[in-house]
Parts: sequence; C-alpha cells; structure tokens
Amino acid sequence: MPKMDLPREELETYLPGRTEPEDFEEFWARTIAESRAAGTGATFTRVDAGLGVFDVYDVSFPGFGGQPVAAWLVTPRAPAAPLPCVVQYLGYGGGRGFPFERTLWASAGYAHLVMDNRGQGASLGSAGATADHGSSAGAHAVGYSTRGILDPEHFYFRRLYTDGVRAVDAAREHPAVDPARVVVAGGSLGGGTALAVSALADGLVGALIDVPALCHPRRAMEVVEGNTYKEIWTFLRTHRDRAADVFRTLSYVDGMNFAARADVPARFSVALMDDICPPSSVFAAYNHYAGPKDIDVWPFNRHEAGGAYQMANQLQFLGDLLG
Amino acid sequence: MPKMDLPREELETYLPGRTEPEDFEEFWARTIAESRAAGTGATFTRVDAGLGVFDVYDVSFPGFGGQPVAAWLVTPRAPAAPLPCVVQYLGYGGGRGFPFERTLWASAGYAHLVMDNRGQGASLGSAGATADHGSSAGAHAVGYSTRGILDPEHFYFRRLYTDGVRAVDAAREHPAVDPARVVVAGGSLGGGTALAVSALADGLVGALIDVPALCHPRRAMEVVEGNTYKEIWTFLRTHRDRAADVFRTLSYVDGMNFAARADVPARFSVALMDDICPPSSVFAAYNHYAGPKDIDVWPFNRHEAGGAYQMANQLQFLGDLLG
Amino acid sequence: MPKMDLPREELETYLPGRTEPEDFEEFWARTIAESRAAGTGATFTRVDAGLGVFDVYDVSFPGFGGQPVAAWLVTPRAPAAPLPCVVQYLGYGGGRGFPFERTLWASAGYAHLVMDNRGQGASLGSAGATADHGSSAGAHAVGYSTRGILDPEHFYFRRLYTDGVRAVDAAREHPAVDPARVVVAGGSLGGGTALAVSALADGLVGALIDVPALCHPRRAMEVVEGNTYKEIWTFLRTHRDRAADVFRTLSYVDGMNFAARADVPARFSVALMDDICPPSSVFAAYNHYAGPKDIDVWPFNRHEAGGAYQMANQLQFLGDLLG
Amino acid sequence: MPKMDLPREELETYLPGRTEPEDFEEFWARTIAESRAAGTGATFTRVDAGLGVFDVYDVSFPGFGGQPVAAWLVTPRAPAAPLPCVVQYLGYGGGRGFPFERTLWASAGYAHLVMDNRGQGASLGSAGATADHGSSAGAHAVGYSTRGILDPEHFYFRRLYTDGVRAVDAAREHPAVDPARVVVAGGSLGGGTALAVSALADGLVGALIDVPALCHPRRAMEVVEGNTYKEIWTFLRTHRDRAADVFRTLSYVDGMNFAARADVPARFSVALMDDICPPSSVFAAYNHYAGPKDIDVWPFNRHEAGGAYQMANQLQFLGDLLG
Amino acid sequence: MPKMDLPREELETYLPGRTEPEDFEEFWARTIAESRAAGTGATFTRVDAGLGVFDVYDVSFPGFGGQPVAAWLVTPRAPAAPLPCVVQYLGYGGGRGFPFERTLWASAGYAHLVMDNRGQGASLGSAGATADHGSSAGAHAVGYSTRGILDPEHFYFRRLYTDGVRAVDAAREHPAVDPARVVVAGGSLGGGTALAVSALADGLVGALIDVPALCHPRRAMEVVEGNTYKEIWTFLRTHRDRAADVFRTLSYVDGMNFAARADVPARFSVALMDDICPPSSVFAAYNHYAGPKDIDVWPFNRHEAGGAYQMANQLQFLGDLLG
Amino acid sequence: MPKMDLPREELETYLPGRTEPEDFEEFWARTIAESRAAGTGATFTRVDAGLGVFDVYDVSFPGFGGQPVAAWLVTPRAPAAPLPCVVQYLGYGGGRGFPFERTLWASAGYAHLVMDNRGQGASLGSAGATADHGSSAGAHAVGYSTRGILDPEHFYFRRLYTDGVRAVDAAREHPAVDPARVVVAGGSLGGGTALAVSALADGLVGALIDVPALCHPRRAMEVVEGNTYKEIWTFLRTHRDRAADVFRTLSYVDGMNFAARADVPARFSVALMDDICPPSSVFAAYNHYAGPKDIDVWPFNRHEAGGAYQMANQLQFLGDLLG
Repeated sequence: MPKMDLPREELETYLPGRTEPEDFEEFWARTIAESRAAGTGATFTRVDAGLGVFDVYDVSFPGFGGQPVAAWLVTPRAPAAPLPCVVQYLGYGGGRGFPFERTLWASAGYAHLVMDNRGQGASLGSAGATADHGSSAGAHAVGYSTRGILDPEHFYFRRLYTDGVRAVDAAREHPAVDPARVVVAGGSLGGGTALAVSALADGLVGALIDVPALCHPRRAMEVVEGNTYKEIWTFLRTHRDRAADVFRTLSYVDGMNFAARADVPARFSVALMDDICPPSSVFAAYNHYAGPKDIDVWPFNRHEAGGAYQMANQLQFLGDLLG
Repeated sequence: MPKMDLPREELETYLPGRTEPEDFEEFWARTIAESRAAGTGATFTRVDAGLGVFDVYDVSFPGFGGQPVAAWLVTPRAPAAPLPCVVQYLGYGGGRGFPFERTLWASAGYAHLVMDNRGQGASLGSAGATADHGSSAGAHAVGYSTRGILDPEHFYFRRLYTDGVRAVDAAREHPAVDPARVVVAGGSLGGGTALAVSALADGLVGALIDVPALCHPRRAMEVVEGNTYKEIWTFLRTHRDRAADVFRTLSYVDGMNFAARADVPARFSVALMDDICPPSSVFAAYNHYAGPKDIDVWPFNRHEAGGAYQMANQLQFLGDLLG
Repeated sequence: MPKMDLPREELETYLPGRTEPEDFEEFWARTIAESRAAGTGATFTRVDAGLGVFDVYDVSFPGFGGQPVAAWLVTPRAPAAPLPCVVQYLGYGGGRGFPFERTLWASAGYAHLVMDNRGQGASLGSAGATADHGSSAGAHAVGYSTRGILDPEHFYFRRLYTDGVRAVDAAREHPAVDPARVVVAGGSLGGGTALAVSALADGLVGALIDVPALCHPRRAMEVVEGNTYKEIWTFLRTHRDRAADVFRTLSYVDGMNFAARADVPARFSVALMDDICPPSSVFAAYNHYAGPKDIDVWPFNRHEAGGAYQMANQLQFLGDLLG
Repeated sequence: MPKMDLPREELETYLPGRTEPEDFEEFWARTIAESRAAGTGATFTRVDAGLGVFDVYDVSFPGFGGQPVAAWLVTPRAPAAPLPCVVQYLGYGGGRGFPFERTLWASAGYAHLVMDNRGQGASLGSAGATADHGSSAGAHAVGYSTRGILDPEHFYFRRLYTDGVRAVDAAREHPAVDPARVVVAGGSLGGGTALAVSALADGLVGALIDVPALCHPRRAMEVVEGNTYKEIWTFLRTHRDRAADVFRTLSYVDGMNFAARADVPARFSVALMDDICPPSSVFAAYNHYAGPKDIDVWPFNRHEAGGAYQMANQLQFLGDLLG
Repeated sequence: MPKMDLPREELETYLPGRTEPEDFEEFWARTIAESRAAGTGATFTRVDAGLGVFDVYDVSFPGFGGQPVAAWLVTPRAPAAPLPCVVQYLGYGGGRGFPFERTLWASAGYAHLVMDNRGQGASLGSAGATADHGSSAGAHAVGYSTRGILDPEHFYFRRLYTDGVRAVDAAREHPAVDPARVVVAGGSLGGGTALAVSALADGLVGALIDVPALCHPRRAMEVVEGNTYKEIWTFLRTHRDRAADVFRTLSYVDGMNFAARADVPARFSVALMDDICPPSSVFAAYNHYAGPKDIDVWPFNRHEAGGAYQMANQLQFLGDLLG
Repeated sequence: MPKMDLPREELETYLPGRTEPEDFEEFWARTIAESRAAGTGATFTRVDAGLGVFDVYDVSFPGFGGQPVAAWLVTPRAPAAPLPCVVQYLGYGGGRGFPFERTLWASAGYAHLVMDNRGQGASLGSAGATADHGSSAGAHAVGYSTRGILDPEHFYFRRLYTDGVRAVDAAREHPAVDPARVVVAGGSLGGGTALAVSALADGLVGALIDVPALCHPRRAMEVVEGNTYKEIWTFLRTHRDRAADVFRTLSYVDGMNFAARADVPARFSVALMDDICPPSSVFAAYNHYAGPKDIDVWPFNRHEAGGAYQMANQLQFLGDLLG
C-alpha cells in the first residue's frame, strides 16, 4: 500500500481554493428550473419482483430536459405511515439492474429509490434502462466523462446531476415516502452526484457521500489516472489546446463548489489508498463542506473504501438521524 | 469472447467417465458421522444488525471434527410459521461478512443461513470469522486448495464440505426454519459445496448450483488456469512426482461423483466463456446429475455467469418449488 | 504468432451464410435518401496549412440527418484538370486531425478527402471536430460500438456509414475533383466504412479495403475480443437477454451483406494474426465480394497488417486503375 | 529504476523507533524453551544423492512444538575434523528441494544445513517436505503471512523462527559440525529468519543477512506492496477494524527488535530499488543491529540484490571469519 | 496523469552540473575527422516511388568508419532553385522505411533527408536497411543501448551520432539542397541525435529537437524506466561492479554536453508526463542549450508529446526561419 | 494449464519433414574447419574462487573465427586421473557468471566446463565476459536471434554453435579431462546448442538436451510467441517480404537437422505446457534423433520443465553412462 497522496495530517487541513465560475449558482438554478419545467410527474408501476417482504415499483421520472429516467422504489411491504427515503445514485457504469440487487435500505426499514445513470448500465455492472439524449458536442474520448466537455451546457454531468435532483423530486411524490425525510446517498460517481444534490435540492435531511468523484479534478488528475480522470486526461492528450475550456467546464461540476453550498448533515468516507478518487480530492470537498459533517477514514483501502464496514456506519448514522 | 471450450452441442452431451474411488461413499459416510459425533448443538444469538424488517442471528455450529463454524441466520421478522430456508455457501475467499451483505433470500420471504468458509474471508471479499484447524499435511501451494492434497483425510475440501452438511443440520435446529424445506445454494466454490451437500445431506428440497468449482478437475485444468485449478497446477509443477496422489485425492471431492448420487431438484447455471470454472467441467457434473434438473446457459459470460439474471431465475424456481 | 483462426486454405474458401434482413436494401436506400434530403451543399474553405505544394480546404458537408461533418480536402497545388480523388475513412477513435497528417494521396498526385468519424477523435489518435447527434437509445457500453445497438434506426454505425456515402457526394462537388474517378479507402473501421460505401455509393471506380471491421461479427466475436467486438461482448455480458436484438441490428452493418452488393474493383488486405479484425471475418466479406477483387495476405502480421508495404501495393493498384 | 524510497544518505542514518512489546524477550524465551522441551534429538540419515565429493544426510529435527522439520546436511566427504557450518534459511515459498540444489557452502569446504520452511515448498521454488501444524486462528488472506496474525501465539512466523533456532540446535548435534562455529544465513524471508536467529540462538559466530523481510513492516508497507506485505495489506483491507491487533502481532517478529539484541558479526545486504523488502526497512534493522556489522549496498538492483556478487562477498567474509 | 517529475517551475530553472569528460571535444573531433576520412561521396539514385509531386532519391552515404548508411531524399518535383533541407533522425527502433512514409517536409516545400538508424528498423516501426558493423565489446543487454557501453570508443551511440553528422554532409552534396540552409530534426532518440549534431555539425540554420533521449541519463534513470534507460539499468543490475565505467561512457553522449556547445536556433519540445524521456532530463539539456531557443511544453502528454500540434509549430518555426 | 500443443500421443509420433538445405553438411564442415584454422590453443588460468573442494580455471578459447570465448573449468580438487567432463551451454541471455554459480557437475565428481554465450550475459542472468564480433548484416529486431538472419553466413547462431564445438575442443586440451569421455549439456538455447554440438563434434559420449530451442522453428512459431521466436516474428512483421530468406537461414540451425546426424546417447526433456520451446518442436527433434535416446516428459510444467527432478535423472544417467 505505497503512499500515494498527502499524509493524513495534511489531508485533514487541505483546503485548496475553490474553482467556481461567477455564474455557478445561476447556471444550476437555471438548469434545474428548466428541467422541472420540461417535464413533470413521475410514474410508479407496482411490479412483482419476487420479494415477499417488500413493495416494489418501477419508476419513470422526468430528468434533465424532461427526458425519462428509470428507477426502482422499494419499500417495506404496506408501510403504516410514510417512511424516510434513501435516494441512491450509482457509480460509474452502473444501471439500476433488478430491484432485488440492492435491498439494504429497504431491509433497514426505509423507502429506497435507486436511479439509473443515463446511458450507462452496460459495462458489467447492473443493467441500465435509460437513454442519454443530447449531442456529443464535438469529439470526445471513449466513455461518458468527456461528452460535451468543451461546453458546460452540453456536459454529460450537467444532465446526470440534474437527474439526481429530479430523482429526489420524484421520490417525494410517492405516498409511501415522507417528503420531509429524504436522504441522498452514493459512492464514487454516485458520491459525486449525492454531493451535488445535497447542494442543489432543498429540504434534505442527510447525505451519505462515499469516496466521491469529480471533486477538485485538477488535483485528482495529478495523483491518479483512473476512470473519469483518465478519460479527461485522454481528451487533453489529444486536444492539447483545449485545457482551459476543459477545466472551465469541470468547474461547474466540481464537488468543492457544491460542498460549500450544502447545509445537510453529511457522512463522508475516504480511503487513503484510493487510486480512483484520491484522498486529497475527497478531503478538498469535505473540508469545504458547509453543513454538519463527519468522515470515516479507511487507511488501508483503495476505492472499495469501507465497504460493508461503511454500511454499518451508515445504518447507525441514519438510525440516529431518522430514528 | 474467443471460444475456450467445447461447442455447446458437445457440452450438452459431454459425459466423461466418473472418477470415484471404491471407498467414496464409505469415506464420506464415515467423515460425516465422525463430525456429527464430535460436536452437537448450534447456537443462535439474536443481534441488532440495523435491519428493521428482519430477525438476525449470529450462528455458531459444530462443523468438521466438531470445530466451530460461524454463520448468519436472517429471517423475515417474527414469522408466523416455520419458513423454507436457503443455506448458502460462498465462493473462494469468501467470509460471512455482515448480516446485511446478503439480504436477497430473506427479502424473498425465506429464512437464510450463510456459512463462513473456514480459514477464508480475508482476501477482499467479505470478512470471515472461522478458523481452519488441522495440519497442512506437507508442503502446499499458496492458497487453500492444495492443503493436504496428498491425502484425502487431510484435504481442505473434506473439511469444508463437511461443514456444508453440518450447516444444513444447524439450520434445521432453529424454530423459524421448517426442516423439511431446506434448499442449498452457492456459486463457484459455493456451487461445488452445494453440489456436494446435495448428495451428502438428506431430505433437501432443492439445490441452486451456479458455475460449480471442483467438477472433473483434470478436465478443467486442461482448459483454464484460474484460482483453485491454478493452485493445483502450481503444486504439480513443483511436486512433479505426485500427480497420481493429487488426482486420487481430488477424486474424493469431484463434483461428478456427488452429482451421480444426488436426487434433489437442482437448478444449475453455466457460462460458456467461464475461464475459472470452464463449461465442460460444469456440464460433466450436470450431465451426471441424477436428480430432476435444469440448467441456465449464459453464452456470453465469464465466471460472473447469469449474475442478477440468474437470481431472477432462482427466485422463480424457488417460488415454484416452495410456493 | 500462435495460430488464432482457420488455416489459410480454409480461409480462402470460407463462405458463411450472409446475415442480411429482408429489408436490408430498403433500410439503406431510405436512410441515404432521407439524409440527402436533410441537407445539401458541402462548403470548402481554403486554408493555409503550411504545405507549399498543396491546396488545402477545410470541408464541412451534411452527413446523416443533414448533420455537419468535418473533412479535409488536399490536392496538388493548382491542378490543371480535375483529379481522381481518394475518399478516406478512419479507424476506430480517429479524427481528421491536421491537414498535414496524411499527405500520402496528395503526394501521389490525387485529390484526397479525409472524413472525421463523428464523435470520435479524442482518444490519442488525431483530433476530431465532428459532433455525434442522436440519443444513446438506452444503455450502452463504454465506447461507440453499442450506441443504439438494440435498434438499427438508432445504431451509431448507421450514422457513420451514411456520413461515408455523403463524403463521396461532397468530394464530387469540388471543381478539383473528377466526380467520375472517386475511390474509397480505409482500414479497420475505416475499411468497414469503405466496404459499406462501395455498395451504397454509385459510380465509384475503386475501393481500398484494409482489414475491415464489422464483417461477420458473430464469427469475429468467437475468435477475438478486441475493440468493437469487445464492446459488443461487454454489452451482451450485461444485457444477457438481448442477444437476438443485438445480432439483428448488427446484420444491418455486416460487411458480408455490403460485399455481396458491390461491383467496384477492390483491393483488400488481411493479416493472418489479426486479433482485432480476425482473418475469417475479413475473408467472409472478401469471399462474398461481388466486384473485381484481389487481396493481400500478410501471414505474420497482427492488425497493423501490411502497413507501408500495403501502401506500396495501393499506390501501384491506383496507378494501374487511374493512370 | 525510479527512486522508490529514501535517498541513500538518509537510509544510512535511518533509525526509527523500535516496536517491541514489553514481553518481547519473555515471549521468545518461553517459546524457545517450550519447543526445546517438546522434542529433542535430530535424526541424520545418510543418502546417496549422486554427489561424489560430498556426504549428504537427510535430516529431521524437532521444531516448534516439537513438530518434525526436514533439512539437508551436506559436508565435504569424510572431513578430517569437525567443520564450521552454515545454517541456511529459505525465502518465501521455498522448500529444501534436492540436496544437490544448493552446493555452494559445501563446495567452499563448510558443512551446510538447509532448513525447510514449514508448509511451504510447493510454489515453483524447490519442493518442501514439512507440514505446518496449527490452527489458522481465524480468517487469513491467501498465503502464509497472515495465519494467526491476530494473536502472536498463533502467528505463522512464531513457528518458523522457532524452527530456525532449533535448526541451529540440530546442526550442532552432528559430529561433522563444530558446534562453536555455526553461521546463519538467508535472504528475504530467509534473511528475516537469520536475523531473528542471530538474536535468539546462543554462540553463533556469524550471520549472513540478505535483504531481510519482516523488518519494520509498517514502514515497508508504506513503500512497497510485494509478497508478505501485500498479504498483510490484503488482510487489513478486509478486516478493517483489526489494524492494532495486526501491528501488535507483527511487533513480535519485527527484525528491528531482534537486531537490537544480536551480538554476532553480521554481513547484511540491501538493494536500493528493492520493491519486495524496501531499503528503508532493511536499514531500519541494520542501523539497530547491535553486533559487529557491515552492509553491501546494491544501488541498481531490485530484490535480486547482489546475487552472485554477494555470494563472492560472503565467501570472502566467511573465509576471513572462519579461516 | 500522476506527477512523475519536478514541478514545472523547478523544471524551468533546472540546471544540473554537466558531465563532460576532459577529452569530450577532442573525442568527437577525432571521431568525426576519422569517419570523414574513412569514406567520402554519397550516392543518390532516383527512384519511382509513386509520388507524382516529388522527386525521390535512394541515398547511401558513408557514415561512421566510412560504413554505408541508407537514407531517402525527397524534394518537391524539379525545384527551380536549391532548397532548404530538413535532415531527420529517427526514434529508437526506427528504419527509413519507404519514401512515402514521411512526406511532411517535402509537402511543405523543403528538401527532406531521412536517415536510417544503423542496425535498427526491424521492431515494428519502419523497416531499416543499414547494418551496424563493430564488436559488441563484451556482454550487453538485449537492445542497442548497451552495446559497447564499457568503452566510449565502442559505444553504439558514438557510431549513430557520427552517422548523423555525416548525413548532413551527404545532404549538402545534392544539387537540390542549399547547403547553407540545413536544419536537423528528430524526436526521442532522433531528438538526441539532432541535439548532438546541432553541436557537432557546422553551419546549420536550425534544429527541431523533440523530447530528446540521452540527456542527463543518470537523472533520467532516477525518474523513469523506459527503453534506453531500462536497457542501461538492466546492464547495471547484472554487471553490478561497472557503474563507473557505464556512466563515464554515457558522459560522451549526454545531451547536456552537446547543448552547451550548440549555437543553432533550436525549437525543443517536452512533455511533462513523459515516462520515456522525462521532463527533467529534457530541461537539463534545454537549460544548458547555448544557442537561440524556445521550447513547447505539453503538460498533459506522455512521450507522444505535441504530436501533430508540434508539427504545426515546427512548420511555423521553419517558415519564419527559412521563409 | 490449458492445452497449448498436440496431445501427448500425437507428440510421440510427430515427425515433420526436415528442413535442411542441400549444403547443410558442407556449410557446417566448412564453418568448423575455418574456425579451427583461425585460432588454436585454449588457455587455462588457475584462480582462487573460494571453493575449497574444487580446482577452478578461468578459460579462454578460440571460438568462431578464432575469436576469444570465455569459460570456467571446475574440477574436484587434484583429481587422481583424468575425469569425464560435462561441457555446458547456457540459455538465452546467460553468461558464465562466477565459477561458484554452477557447482552441480563438479560436486558429482566430474570436470565441468561452462561456456559464455557471446555478447550475452547482461540481462539479469549471470554476467557474461565475451564479445560478439561481426556485423549485424542489416536491420535486426531487438535481441540476438535475428542478427544476420537474412544470410546464414552472418547469422548469430552460426557463431554461437561453432563456439559450442570449439568448447569441446578446448575441454579436451586440459589434463584433468579425459578427452574420450566428454558429455554436452544444456537447456533451452543451451539445449539447442548441445543438440547442434552432438552432431557437429566427434567422439562425444553423451548429451543432456533439455527443452531445446531452435527446433522446427516454423512450427514453434505457430504455437508460441516467446523469446527467440518472438524476435523472429517481430522481424517478419516488419520485413514482410523476407520470410523465405528468414526460414532458409533458420534451416541451417534447425535442431531437427542436427538430430538426424547425431549418434551420441542422449537424454532429452520436454515440458508439455512449455510456452517458450513448445513440445511439438522438441519432439520434432527428438523423433528425428538418430542416436540412442530417451526423453523425460513433464506434463504439468512450462519452460522450467523438470528442474531439479531432471537434474536427478541426469545424475543417474551420467552415473550409468560414465560410472
């Protein structure tokens, strides 16, 4: 486990300057407003998923630009009262799969909505069911992370994060969900999404943010070369003259900039050997995070981070928060 | 997905000669009887695992030689009547982990007992909690698969498979479990264990056997070089004069030999590109299987095989069988 | 150079059944007609590329759906009469780059138009400048090859191959080009495009088709696991229930089906150790090719095939054809 | 040969705090005493190994817990007087193999005893012949290094190092060996063993310690991820809550703690590019070493270190020491 | 793109001490003089390479020791007056190939001579046609870089760099070339050659030096382990006692030492992620470079550096210089 | 250990046509005669290698073209009568190293001469001390195997095999050696050399030929891509037009052609999983071998083949032959 980033004591106080452009808040306010205007009304279709102790709904809700996004809603069977709800975002490449693939949160007694990553879900994780509409806006590297990277308006993550906000909106529409007790959760890219939504959605009561991606990407790219960061690097190795445009676009999705605008109680995690989302990038966001916060530090782990040990912490954290 | 084994039509009729030694049945009857005599009485300790809709028990039962083996039992909360139970065995390297790591079968309404693989559970899967007692009986290669491989009495898999039988015994002791409706399940090494137990345990009602390991190992070693088979190969590359002993010992755990002695309705799966447990080795066992049977064939998959698609099939299969 | 496909003598007579759907010709006729209707008129902007002996034009032409596609046109300076023109398509990931990156054909005295691969050109080859518009039409694997693979109407290669036909249309609009003497050329994915265009465009006088991709993909996937074929395989490993849809969509772009409809004199090449576009897939197309034809066989090469040796053969072939 | 550890000048004065627990000396004194009590009397069986100029003996001696450990003793044929003896310990995975595999020390005119590593010797080095008795004491990672790592009493290396002390005892029993002139030697894990024995055995006259393993393991794990250290890391990545126990157990076998208790003249070696036993871990032990000492530094080598060049130095060193 | 060398601001002022031996200038003066004496008179044979717009000559000139070296000379067809000439040196493993493989400089209107690397050109780049005469002068590692590395007189690069000087001599002999306007160019090993020739040849008007190899090799070997540096390292790992000789020999070809003796206007390039020719080694030479100079810094690139973007800069630079 | 060549029963009768050119015998007779004429008289310098029980001589003998080749001669100290002698040739990359690196044969009571591979011995095996004189005769791939491959006169292996014959001549000059009892031995490239010398030298009494290289290379190249064969393949991938020349040159060193001309009792070995010297290539030579012969078949091994187990067989074989 060779050292691959700053020592822990430096990480804990690492507070690089944020990167937000002047119109950061306006950009996102406009984006969300436009998408909310473009489509309304999630649909919930009860399905028999073979899970005798749960109610399962096939969900379609209007995401970015009103485009349909798939999700599952799973709740304990026939709840007596509206339940707190965990809205979960997936890691890179993930799709919602089958409703029985992620039964943790419903097993704990919560409502659980898991959102498809648009266009993803065909790369050996769970299968996805959501199309990504929109132009590639020029050349892009293989993968999702550089689609539209020369222009914030066309950037893939603008669409994905907006879907994330709209997933919260959708969950709140279901009668089994108590709209005042919604938590967002996710790891890696899902952690990046949860972090963004913690700033962009209103009235959340908690956020579970594991090893989030897309935090201080310029720093991350100096430390690791995994997944998203490798795609961006590949783009820059080819389009050598577009670095300024690329980093400007990234500033609209940089987790540091969302962190500084969040006020939701958050439980982060970070792994000190993480070569996908390096610890300094995670701490860059965590140290800027403006809400109540705590972080689990896993000194010997790579991107798997706390794994089930983190789930145990999260169950405890949500129990305290919502119990 | 380059072709790596026989064509499908040949697989479906592939029926190589079995390998059982003369004392195969006596060996296992004696083994099980001795272990049942060496220790009795599982313990079930109720724990709070944060899973509101389930009852969770920390289980310790006497396995091979009466040695303690850890497991979890998870059931829907406060069942009105004894439930069918799925006893699950894990793949190579796996430990029982936390009780919330595998909630599928309880979510489907069954009791679910998941057994630790003795000595395993420290190699990036779930954490294990069970010691493996016993001598290495000479030199062995790195890993578990060649411990005691020169002598069936000391072979690691003798101990593991006996634990598997005793796990069924243990599940039947719990009041929430209907002892007449126990199913065994597992994939890879867990599939090999489930296959062995389907022959060695009495009165099972079903077996879910995914891409089982340790079936016709001599053939498997001609096709692939993954995990268990690689360890055996490594042993043979060093101890060049012991091949006869090695294959004799393996004949006591060869899935083909168990298959021919099973009468439980079984649902197998196989992946045609599986480079860990190659399809001809799986079909060698399946085609010898003496009970009612069906097999899901995944033509484009490696060892991940059907994944969640297979789970869907299993939920359906158990629903039909137990419903 | 371990053998990785059929022996040469079997390759030379390998003629698997074609895969075209009933509406293959109607599908492509409609596709081309609709795109020709959706946009007309290429633009040619003279630029100073530092190449004193050539005239260089930045080209934009209407491709699939009338969407703009970028290209370069390079000709010997101030030609006395319209010239034969080589229209070149690029391999997977390629973009048109700078006009001085591919000066072979102009150096030989021909006009040369090189077309961008839409959306590509940011993965360490030459930089691209063309957006790919259109929905992902569901989940897709990382890469371009499975975008829209569940529906021929939305398949990425439908758009790309249509661009290829429209590139020929565009070249013919320029006064330095003799519209009666247009040749198509390309290797790998560019070879697949050239093969498709050789069947879909009218009045071509030659085709240079090197190690073409997307020929008999089902066979290719049994032999190799590179690039495009790996992406398709990845899709199938996840979306295990969609193989029939995938192969139906692929039948609309299978090089065998284009080959049987071409009548242009063609020079193919194939490499017997090619683990990206395996020789049996190339011969499957070549042996179905209906026009005058010849093939250079490189027995010791992988996907690099003949390299500069093939260029020498092509210069000779075009010299004979056009001289 | 990218720099992978401290600069040489810092290495030469690198003296991190030692890690020994309070009962370190008591622990080892008790361990050795118990094992000496548990079994006595090595056996030496003359064998014909085809080596005309040597006498060869198949040795079995009582090791940890009195358990039998195999070795070879090779001496120049019919020595006129008792000889100095080199007791050699093997690297990770090694077994004693055949007696003709290591003829260096007998060729130099010394008696030579080479000890099996218990349980090892089946991983492509020389074949081993010694069983490792004892429980795994819970889950452990693949490999030997984490067996019993949660408890010093059950730790694999406790058993191995005790065998090492008893091997010296055994050598001294043979009439061809001068018990007052015994040297210990080994590289990598064998170096770790030789270092431990140099502190634990009495009356040695020299120690040849090449690139020793298990010195300051916490530091080593920050620099490299090879073999033993990777296994420990793997354990910690899974059993995330047991780091304190793991490092406590390791403190009982940390080479630094033995070094400070040795008084034997020692010749160390270290390789500055060693990514298995990194130089700072070796210097941590060397700089604490309390006896007369020298070290050969190989600036351009990895774990192979000085190889035959080191042997030349060792022949010279022993010649001076014993001549 | 993890950081792999000094930060940019340190690179820009990085000026390590040079390494030249006392007889550096005498060594090279004698070497060149002897080779010029050993053979004179390049031959230029007009060939038909299928390139209608160019004149192509197969060149053989006397290189080191008068030994014949192959090259191509390509010029715009029938130039009205002698042209400026770019003499190009190739990267490691490269051969001159076919004359149509590198048409950039002739397309720009210059004469262009490309020199074979003696003995190279059979490792998947372009094919070479030049033998390397001379003894291996002892053992050497696989590859060219350690041939004769124990003695500057027999070192491979002495021969190669002398060929480079003689290639300029040869170009000047052709009537289509203006001997007063010769530029040298190359990347990687070709960049090292161009740098050496910029100091060793007289009367050059420019030098294009991309990511040059063999600059401050001792430093480079501390940062990377690619190609040439890995071969030297391999030699040192085996011949552990010859480091002083190796570095002495290297001092005769160290780019820093040539840089300090050059006065030609030069355009360098460097890539900050280059793991073959690391940026500190390139800046070590650049910062010592004594002539007018500029450097293009590619922050996101590996050894591909600026690629076609650099070509664009070079076209501009030469246009300004020679226009 | 996936099957990688013919089944064993086919191997045992595999007898492909030999490849010798008409002048094969003349070529070698002339080669040997010329080299014997070019230099005579080995020198033997007694050295103190620290090996008390042996006499050690630093040997220099005239090899190909009379060029000096280094070797070690080691014998039991002060033998009473001339001894049988094992002349050993080394594998690819090997050098003679230190005299104490290979003490097996002297330990068994024989004289032992180990020959340097010219030019080799700097690639992490033992260090070499012999230069390879001669031109590269054109371009060649990295490595030794394609030097001069376009012309048998300049081929590297012509020089090496001639050295091998002259090493036997040299051994016979020493008074401690009985010239009538010389055995040749070697593995891999050393096995190829021993096989060649068994046909080219007179009066040998035995040959130990382990997994010999350069037997039926065309076949070997269809099965594997290791070392020598990969270098040849690399050459052919670049020089696509020279296959006929390459295979003609190889026919002069093809082990099959030597085998048919040998009459020395030989002990071969072969490993059925050998991916460097594949079993069909070894059996091709063995089955053509014209002298008394036996072969050890290692079914589970790669190129390490029998290792120490083979040494045991060889000690027995030589004991029977010479005892």
